[in-house]
Amino acid sequence: MIRYPNGKTFQPKHSVSSQNSQKRAPSYSNRGMTLEDDLNETNKYYLTNQIAVIHKKPTPVQIVNVHYPKRSAAVIKEAYFKQSSTTDYNGIYKGRYIDFEAKETKNKTSFPLQNFHDHQIEHMKQVKAQDGICFVIISAFDQVYFLEADKLFYFWDRKEKNGRKSIRKDELEETAYPISLGYAPRIDYISIIEQLYFSPSSGAKG
Amino acid sequence: MIRYPNGKTFQPKHSVSSQNSQKRAPSYSNRGMTLEDDLNETNKYYLTNQIAVIHKKPTPVQIVNVHYPKRSAAVIKEAYFKQSSTTDYNGIYKGRYIDFEAKETKNKTSFPLQNFHDHQIEHMKQVKAQDGICFVIISAFDQVYFLEADKLFYFWDRKEKNGRKSIRKDELEETAYPISLGYAPRIDYISIIEQLYFSPSSGAKG
Repeated sequence: MIRYPNGKTFQPKHSVSSQNSQKRAPSYSNRGMTLEDDLNETNKYYLTNQIAVIHKKPTPVQIVNVHYPKRSAAVIKEAYFKQSSTTDYNGIYKGRYIDFEAKETKNKTSFPLQNFHDHQIEHMKQVKAQDGICFVIISAFDQVYFLEADKLFYFWDRKEKNGRKSIRKDELEETAYPISLGYAPRIDYISIIEQLYFSPSSGAKG
Repeated sequence: MIRYPNGKTFQPKHSVSSQNSQKRAPSYSNRGMTLEDDLNETNKYYLTNQIAVIHKKPTPVQIVNVHYPKRSAAVIKEAYFKQSSTTDYNGIYKGRYIDFEAKETKNKTSFPLQNFHDHQIEHMKQVKAQDGICFVIISAFDQVYFLEADKLFYFWDRKEKNGRKSIRKDELEETAYPISLGYAPRIDYISIIEQLYFSPSSGAKG
């Protein structure tokens, strides 16, 4: 049984939908596509079908030297990767602000929290304070999970207090929602958002 | 008198607040700072004071060649500027999705619409369809203006129908809200959002 530091027991997620949690989602491995490729395809599907407007932010770089040839495009000759100050994906669904990070691991038994950076957690806490819909998409154990930000904060705080440095497979299965996978959309995370935040029975208010 | 193509007369903005429209906003020129610098400072102010979480998106680049020296950071040796597929700024205020573009002109009599790209207008229309709060911040005529996306679309459609290719100074003054300028925040666009979308009398539902 997982207990919050304040002693409150952890409310395992209420069933999102029988269609989702009973039916074992198809395995998400050996597909040759990366999680990022699949999310880009998914977001294109949502955009084209006027479901949502969600984009991956460009990779931040520090540009140091640019060359401007006469008859062709400017060429960046020297630049460095910069750490992003936010999460990678954001946008809008039915007027609400959507913000998430996507991570994947090949690890078989747990999901390492070192995949996240302090400022990403800080950013997600700022978004939650403004009543945004914030979560992480985790590809692990041949499955893709939707983990609400509040639940990530629980595991992150545990790590910060010298507790476990990862989320065990059984813990992730208990606290996250398996996302249904398909061709279009590839990773249907909006259907989880719809059930958690927009359906009449949605109890898990952000 | 400005008329929509469908003949409807253009509703000049109702007064946002006497404090704003009567008092001529201080001149926004000869300040040595760019509009982008001032907006970055403004967004930092909103973040630090837990008012809103709004960031400028990184500049999109197409990375072609990266060098990985042994004992120092990776160096991007060849990359090209890519056209952004969205607007530059987005984030969250009181749960609502905020999305805008910022432009400035030295032109004395009108604001050229060529500053905008088709895909930015397309993106803003997609955001509006999802009930997002969408606008442009225009620095022109020694002043900084907040122009709602719908009103930009009116001028953009006019141009597309071989009409005028810019927004005249008097038209901008009639349809946009002057933003109050100061030290902190530098360009207080949230105060306009608060009045347009969150105050009881807010008629101009985005």
